[in-house]
Amino acid sequence: MRYGVILAGGGGTRLWPASRRARPKQLLRLLGQGETLLAATYRRALRVAGRAIVVTAAEQADAVREELGPAAEILAEPVGRNTAAAIGLAAVHLTGRDAEPTMAILPSDHYIGDEDGFAAAAARGFALAEERAAIAALGVRPTRAEAGFGYLELGEVLDLDPVAHPPARAVRRFVEKPSAAAAAAMVADGGYLWNTGITFAPAGRLLADIGRCLPETHRALVAIGEELADGGAAAAEARAALLYPGLPAVSIDHGVLEHVPDILCVPGDFGWNDVGSWSALADIVAAGADGNVSVGQVVALGGARGNIAIAEPGRLVAILGVEDLVVVQAGDAVLVVPRGRAQEVREVALALGRAGLDGFL
Amino acid sequence: MRYGVILAGGGGTRLWPASRRARPKQLLRLLGQGETLLAATYRRALRVAGRAIVVTAAEQADAVREELGPAAEILAEPVGRNTAAAIGLAAVHLTGRDAEPTMAILPSDHYIGDEDGFAAAAARGFALAEERAAIAALGVRPTRAEAGFGYLELGEVLDLDPVAHPPARAVRRFVEKPSAAAAAAMVADGGYLWNTGITFAPAGRLLADIGRCLPETHRALVAIGEELADGGAAAAEARAALLYPGLPAVSIDHGVLEHVPDILCVPGDFGWNDVGSWSALADIVAAGADGNVSVGQVVALGGARGNIAIAEPGRLVAILGVEDLVVVQAGDAVLVVPRGRAQEVREVALALGRAGLDGFL
Repeated sequence: MRYGVILAGGGGTRLWPASRRARPKQLLRLLGQGETLLAATYRRALRVAGRAIVVTAAEQADAVREELGPAAEILAEPVGRNTAAAIGLAAVHLTGRDAEPTMAILPSDHYIGDEDGFAAAAARGFALAEERAAIAALGVRPTRAEAGFGYLELGEVLDLDPVAHPPARAVRRFVEKPSAAAAAAMVADGGYLWNTGITFAPAGRLLADIGRCLPETHRALVAIGEELADGGAAAAEARAALLYPGLPAVSIDHGVLEHVPDILCVPGDFGWNDVGSWSALADIVAAGADGNVSVGQVVALGGARGNIAIAEPGRLVAILGVEDLVVVQAGDAVLVVPRGRAQEVREVALALGRAGLDGFL
Repeated sequence: MRYGVILAGGGGTRLWPASRRARPKQLLRLLGQGETLLAATYRRALRVAGRAIVVTAAEQADAVREELGPAAEILAEPVGRNTAAAIGLAAVHLTGRDAEPTMAILPSDHYIGDEDGFAAAAARGFALAEERAAIAALGVRPTRAEAGFGYLELGEVLDLDPVAHPPARAVRRFVEKPSAAAAAAMVADGGYLWNTGITFAPAGRLLADIGRCLPETHRALVAIGEELADGGAAAAEARAALLYPGLPAVSIDHGVLEHVPDILCVPGDFGWNDVGSWSALADIVAAGADGNVSVGQVVALGGARGNIAIAEPGRLVAILGVEDLVVVQAGDAVLVVPRGRAQEVREVALALGRAGLDGFL
C-alpha cells in the first residue's frame, strides 16, 4: 500500500520571527489565516497516498498532534538525527504492518502552489517505485541559479510512460548546495533539476539501502522493529530512546541516496517552493497594485514599493516611503531587513542566543 | 500664588503607532520604562510652582487621573476648543480661589532634558509676570531652521536682572510656522527664538487680554466662573458643557498673544524638544556604539546604522543591514519609515481612517 511519510522534525531560523523553537516553519501559516505548511502537506499526503505517518521530534509531537488532530499517526523521535534515521524509523514501522509498503517521503515545510500538478507527479513517482522497486526523486525545473538547493544531474531517458512529458530519467549524480558559479552552469546546461527532497521508494528497498550505506543506523532500526513486533509501540519507543543518541546525524541524500547507483527522477512542475527565506514569499504571493507583497493587514504609503510586509491577524504593519525591504511582525518581535539580505536572518537567531535573549527564539 | 497650568488635551498623530486616540502623546513613555511626558510635566510644575492644575478633554480625564494619581487637580473640558479656552478656564478657576494667582502655562507633550535649566528659566518667568504684571513667553535658541515651530522676534533688552544672561527681552512679533526660507533667515539673523509655548502670566491679566481679543470666549468664561462661585465645580462643569460647543477653537498665541503689544520673552536653554516626530528622538536619546538610536530591546546586525528603533517592554525589534530608518513597534502596530520622512507619519493616521481601520488609531 501507499503511505505518505511526512518529515516534521525541522527547526529553521531563516523565517524568524515567525518561526520559533516552539513553532517551527512547518507550523507556520505563511499566507495569513490559511492552513499551516504541515497541515497542507498532510492533506496532500492523504490525497496521493490514502494514508500518512508523521515523523517528528518528541518535543514537537504535541504541537504536531494539536495541528493534525487525534486521527494522525505520529512517530516521535527521542532526539533528532536528521532524515536518514527519521525515514528509516518510518520504514521499520511500515514494514512491520504491511507486506509491500511504498513511501512518498514528504518534507513538511515546503509550499506547493499547484496541487493537481503535484498529485500527477506523485502518481508517477509511486508507480515507478512500485513497478521497478525503484527509488524515485521528484525534481523540478530550476528557475534561477539558487546555490542553497540540491540538484539532480539527469541521465538516460526511461521509456516507461511515453505519454508523460517530460519523461522520467535516471539520476546520474546528486549535487548538494553548489557554488554560485556551478549553480549558474547547471541552470544554463538544462540537464539538471532542483532536488525537492520529495522521494518515492518501497520501504523494504530503502531499508536495504540504509543497511548498505549506514550499517549502524540499520542495526538500530532493526532492533527497534523487533521491539515493535514483540512489545508494541511503547516498547519500540523505549528502545529508540536508548539507541537514537548514538546514531549519526545524516541526511538521507548524503548518507544513502548519493551512494545508490540506480536512483530515478520524476520531473514535475507544481509551483514548488521551499520557502527558504522571507524573500521566497514574493514567489508565492502576488504583489499588490502598489508593488508590495503583503500578508495580513499592511498599509503602504508615500511610494513604498517592492517590499514584503507581513502582519499577524489583528496586527498592522505600516510602511511609508521605503523600498525593497522585508518587514515581518510575528508574536513579540519585529524584523526589518533588505529583501536581498533575507538569507542572513539566521544571523539574528545566533545573535539572540549569544545575547541571552532566548525568549525570542 | 504660583500655579502650573498643564495643557493635557492634545491628540497628536505624528508619533503613531505609539500615540493613539486612547493614549495621546503626553501619555507616552518615550524613553521606554520611565515616566510619561505628562507625569514629567506635572513633576516639574510642582517643582517650579508648588501647585498645579491640569486641563484636559473629558474623554481623556480618566487616563490623566490614572497617570497622575488622585491628588492631582484636573479640569475636564466638555469638548476641545484649543488653548485659549483651556487656559482661560484654568484662569477662571484660579482667580476664583486666589487673590493674585500667577500661571506657568505648560504644554504636557514636550521633553525637557535639563530640569535645573528649566527651573531657573521658570523662576525668571514667574518673577517677570509678578513684578511687571506681564505675560512672558519662554523662548529657546533655535538649533536648526525648523519650519514646524513658532518663532519670537526679540525686541528691546529689559534691564531687570543684570545677572541673567542672556537677558529678558520684549517680544516684537510672533511668527507662526514660517516657510523654510523664512525659518533659515530667522536662524541666520540670530534675533529670533523658538516659541516653546511655555508662558508665564498673572491669571487676571491674561483674562483681561482674552476679554479684549476674544470677547465671546471671555463671556463664557465669566459665566462659568460665576457658576463656580455660586454652585461649585459640578455646576460650573454643567455650564461649561452648555457653553463650550459654541466657542471658537483658537490657540492662545493666535487668538490673544499675537495681538498684545507688551509680551516679554524669557530666554532659556534647557534641552527643550517638542518631539514633533520620531526623528526628534535622536535629539533626546544618544546613539549606541552601533550607530543606532534604540529604545527598548533592539538587535542591530549586518551593518545596520543610523536607525531609530523602538520596542515596547517585552518586545523585540531586529534590524539587519538597513540604514536611516525609523522602526517603531507599539501595541498592535508596526511602523517603518525613512528618518527624513518621519513628518509624514500623520498621513498614516489619515489613511487608516479612510480605510476604516479606526481600531489602529
